[in-house]
Amino acid sequence: MPAPEEEFVVTPYEVKGKIDYTRLRELFGAQELTPELLARLHHLAGGELHPLLARGIYYSQRDLASLLDDYAHGRPFFLYSGRGPSGPLHMSHLIQFDLCLWFQKRLGVPMYIQITDDEKYWARAGLTREETAQWGMENLYDILALGFDPKRTHTFFDSKSIAALYPLAIRVARKINYSNVKAVFGFGPSTNIGLVFYTALQSVPSFWPSWAENRSVPCLIPCGIDQDPHFRLTRDVAEGLGFPKPALLHSQMVPGLLGEGVMSTSGSRADDALFLSDESWVVDRKLRNAFTGGRATVEEQRRLGAVPEICSIWALWRTRFAPTEAEFNEITRTCRSGELLCGDCKARLIERVHSFYEEHARQREKVKDWAESTIVTVPPKPL
Amino acid sequence: MPAPEEEFVVTPYEVKGKIDYTRLRELFGAQELTPELLARLHHLAGGELHPLLARGIYYSQRDLASLLDDYAHGRPFFLYSGRGPSGPLHMSHLIQFDLCLWFQKRLGVPMYIQITDDEKYWARAGLTREETAQWGMENLYDILALGFDPKRTHTFFDSKSIAALYPLAIRVARKINYSNVKAVFGFGPSTNIGLVFYTALQSVPSFWPSWAENRSVPCLIPCGIDQDPHFRLTRDVAEGLGFPKPALLHSQMVPGLLGEGVMSTSGSRADDALFLSDESWVVDRKLRNAFTGGRATVEEQRRLGAVPEICSIWALWRTRFAPTEAEFNEITRTCRSGELLCGDCKARLIERVHSFYEEHARQREKVKDWAESTIVTVPPKPL
Repeated sequence: MPAPEEEFVVTPYEVKGKIDYTRLRELFGAQELTPELLARLHHLAGGELHPLLARGIYYSQRDLASLLDDYAHGRPFFLYSGRGPSGPLHMSHLIQFDLCLWFQKRLGVPMYIQITDDEKYWARAGLTREETAQWGMENLYDILALGFDPKRTHTFFDSKSIAALYPLAIRVARKINYSNVKAVFGFGPSTNIGLVFYTALQSVPSFWPSWAENRSVPCLIPCGIDQDPHFRLTRDVAEGLGFPKPALLHSQMVPGLLGEGVMSTSGSRADDALFLSDESWVVDRKLRNAFTGGRATVEEQRRLGAVPEICSIWALWRTRFAPTEAEFNEITRTCRSGELLCGDCKARLIERVHSFYEEHARQREKVKDWAESTIVTVPPKPL
Repeated sequence: MPAPEEEFVVTPYEVKGKIDYTRLRELFGAQELTPELLARLHHLAGGELHPLLARGIYYSQRDLASLLDDYAHGRPFFLYSGRGPSGPLHMSHLIQFDLCLWFQKRLGVPMYIQITDDEKYWARAGLTREETAQWGMENLYDILALGFDPKRTHTFFDSKSIAALYPLAIRVARKINYSNVKAVFGFGPSTNIGLVFYTALQSVPSFWPSWAENRSVPCLIPCGIDQDPHFRLTRDVAEGLGFPKPALLHSQMVPGLLGEGVMSTSGSRADDALFLSDESWVVDRKLRNAFTGGRATVEEQRRLGAVPEICSIWALWRTRFAPTEAEFNEITRTCRSGELLCGDCKARLIERVHSFYEEHARQREKVKDWAESTIVTVPPKPL
């Protein structure tokens, strides 16, 4: 939803300005992810909370309470998240999949991944079909390599899964009109008709298990809050189609390494994003050059401490690379106190990132054997 | 294209008012089907012309001359026409398929039929998906039963063929924006996003053989002139995608039996259309009650003659039921002279319609064995 009087704009197709996340949640009409809800998640997961939840990166939600009520009454949910394959994955993209993986490992729930190679072709004039299809497979390997269970993970790769998605997309599309997508996405006369249609396909996975099994199966969608508009439409049409509204968990986006706005591959700020595809020396260069909350001199930093809240390195510790609260709190504390200098902090993070990349590369080779087999190509019913 | 200052409106989704066909052709920017072009078709077909061509029902075209040039130089074309399955076929729907069949029988060219069960669901709020899918198969049986060659006839049944159509539809859709479809179809804010997207899918069959065979294969689309807007868009995007522009042959629509406007199933004028599904006694009733160009009394008609141009019965002789020019001219002459009275003319037509329906029902049973096998479900290439 563009917010013309605000200093920022957030839609699935544009993120601009300095985002006030609380204000954005209010603008979108979403609810707070309260301490009470976090406590329920903590309990559900057997007494732990994923760092992305514990540290407030997921901060907003829709209908999470009723999803948890359902779960408590023996009606498990499934997970759905997706990726628009316009290039390699960067750290901000992992936020949703890391949380999905945590839910899958803790609760054994099924995961549905959507790879929107059609949408990205429609959204980015500079990309060829070959590119979005190729990135789609590369991205899928990267996602699965995080540790998803081959037996419980299903992929809708739009161009390969269209026969499976389309019967339900036809029904969804009749319930959404041009003025809906214009209002929600800010589309205009020059928007191509593929993009206008697209949200119908993005709604389908939310309903898939309910459709396939002829019963109401709750859905949880962890996503960047910029994707909320898609799912507002999905939620609006759900009940008219006889399906439950998907619940949402909204995350903030990871700040870019250059210290301006969110980590992004759009535009020309190549060094702003840390990509999974980056070679080791590129990781080093990007992180060494990354914007921090440090002071002008070592002396000043020792005296005043640094400012983690504005630091792109701290953001990476926060979202992914400090697995325990103890370590994360220690990093934050020593940063703020001036004990931890930026150079040392970066060197430590670089090492941690390298370990992750090495392990990820190993896992990635393994998933290539079975990634294709997760792709759904057949609808559960003809209409 | 809506023509606000005209007394009629013709789009694929609305036909209203008394159509001035010459003016409509000019508004659409199409060319006349000239005597010279008809002579070339006559020659091509080995010295005959289909009645729909000879009698001016097909009256407008785009790029027919270059299609015939190609044919003369050893580059045969293929045929493409379609049907939006909102109910049973009526006589106006046969105009395109009768001409396609004639081309296929004379020249042995391939025929591609598109059954748009998704589009009709989007265009008609009163229809269920089950209905458009069911009508799709019923309509396909009726079309194939006209005499199409199973070996040379292929069907795109949208909901069943989507995996085959979608890879190319993705490319088409990026080239058409909302303002294009708004201008061409008169779409507005309340148009659903399925219908906005639809024209991308309707373009695909025009390009299919060229796409599949990696060479330029000319396409001829016989269609009601109300469908021209779809194919204007198709023609606009063709060259940018590396395909030849399809040539078009435009027909007028058959007048309704009630004597007002074109034969139509929309609205509540059930007896306006003669359906292939009508039982024998219904055919009798509809034709006996049909509006004619006759006079108030027999005496007056004998004296003044009748007016074939406004007669719905004469329109049926003209478009389908008088196979030879000799018979058609005799009917027209004796109608005009007062020799042929409406009751006798109707009785003769009713008999002719019954024979056709009986033969058609026999053929229809036979095509059920192979209709499904004409449906294309696999794309020729993945992207």
